[in-house]
Amino acid sequence: MPRTGSRPGGRSARIRAAVHRAVKELLTDEADELLTIPVVAARAGVHATTVYRRWGSVGDLLADVATSRFSDGNVVPDTGSLRGDLERYASDLAKDLNDPDTLPLVRATIGTAGEQGASACTGERQQQLQAMLDRERARGNWAPTVERATEALLAPLYYRAVFTDQAPTAEWARTLVSHLLPD
Amino acid sequence: MPRTGSRPGGRSARIRAAVHRAVKELLTDEADELLTIPVVAARAGVHATTVYRRWGSVGDLLADVATSRFSDGNVVPDTGSLRGDLERYASDLAKDLNDPDTLPLVRATIGTAGEQGASACTGERQQQLQAMLDRERARGNWAPTVERATEALLAPLYYRAVFTDQAPTAEWARTLVSHLLPD
Repeated sequence: MPRTGSRPGGRSARIRAAVHRAVKELLTDEADELLTIPVVAARAGVHATTVYRRWGSVGDLLADVATSRFSDGNVVPDTGSLRGDLERYASDLAKDLNDPDTLPLVRATIGTAGEQGASACTGERQQQLQAMLDRERARGNWAPTVERATEALLAPLYYRAVFTDQAPTAEWARTLVSHLLPD
Repeated sequence: MPRTGSRPGGRSARIRAAVHRAVKELLTDEADELLTIPVVAARAGVHATTVYRRWGSVGDLLADVATSRFSDGNVVPDTGSLRGDLERYASDLAKDLNDPDTLPLVRATIGTAGEQGASACTGERQQQLQAMLDRERARGNWAPTVERATEALLAPLYYRAVFTDQAPTAEWARTLVSHLLPD
């Protein structure tokens, strides 16, 4: 088997892990320093040219870190009812947004990676909402549109986290579901 | 009258205007260049030390630009009904978020100025919502809480602008009001 740059567990994967870790550390350091490729490379212990070659710009690098951070491991709950599923999902998202790693990464990615970065931050959340709504319809019940569920759940959660000094709590997240679904 | 640095219309005000203009131009240039104080100073035609002395960091500078951009000139509508006021207000906010200057400034400010920057971007919007809700209560009518109005109106408008590739339209903004207020 040839040694290629992209072999899992190989040098390429180690570099990727070190660079991703460096970005996360620098973002939570609360250093006033601007996040630049030379700064990330120095922290990761790799050559800046390696980082430039692989990611091109800080925006592309942050979008990659955000994609791998926010597209993995969200479990879509299956509680037997749409209300239960959405309450679980919204309160899990509130907890995730309260993770000390999350907000600095979301803010920095929005700031430098534009639209691509912003959609990397929300990851697969819209598709996951869609899956819960489709399952409810498959049970023969009414469900709101995914646009409406996005406005009523995702929007207030991300808005509160990113734009305000209030933390989104799990309890508050569940009240959002009560406004979306009629009694 | 002594010539002081802060005399309106004086040198200090001219520097401030030039620096603010430089930030806005650089943000809409879609240059891949990072916004740094030396880059802003060069574009504004002032010494970098002047900018450092006055604003300290890119984050503080962006928060100042966002504050002056987003805290002025929002008229609180007075149509005679809460529904009319909120529909006008939400559709005006949608138009403002579609302004080509707005989104790059919001994203960059969130990215570099943290919580202070994020609240600079929403400016006085929560107080303005509060004023419309209070006026409706003073008429003897029911009105939602400002927290609920924020979740139902501000959150989806900012979320759609910042996190998605869909532009918030005036028509869509008015539908948000219909979900907040019962028929």
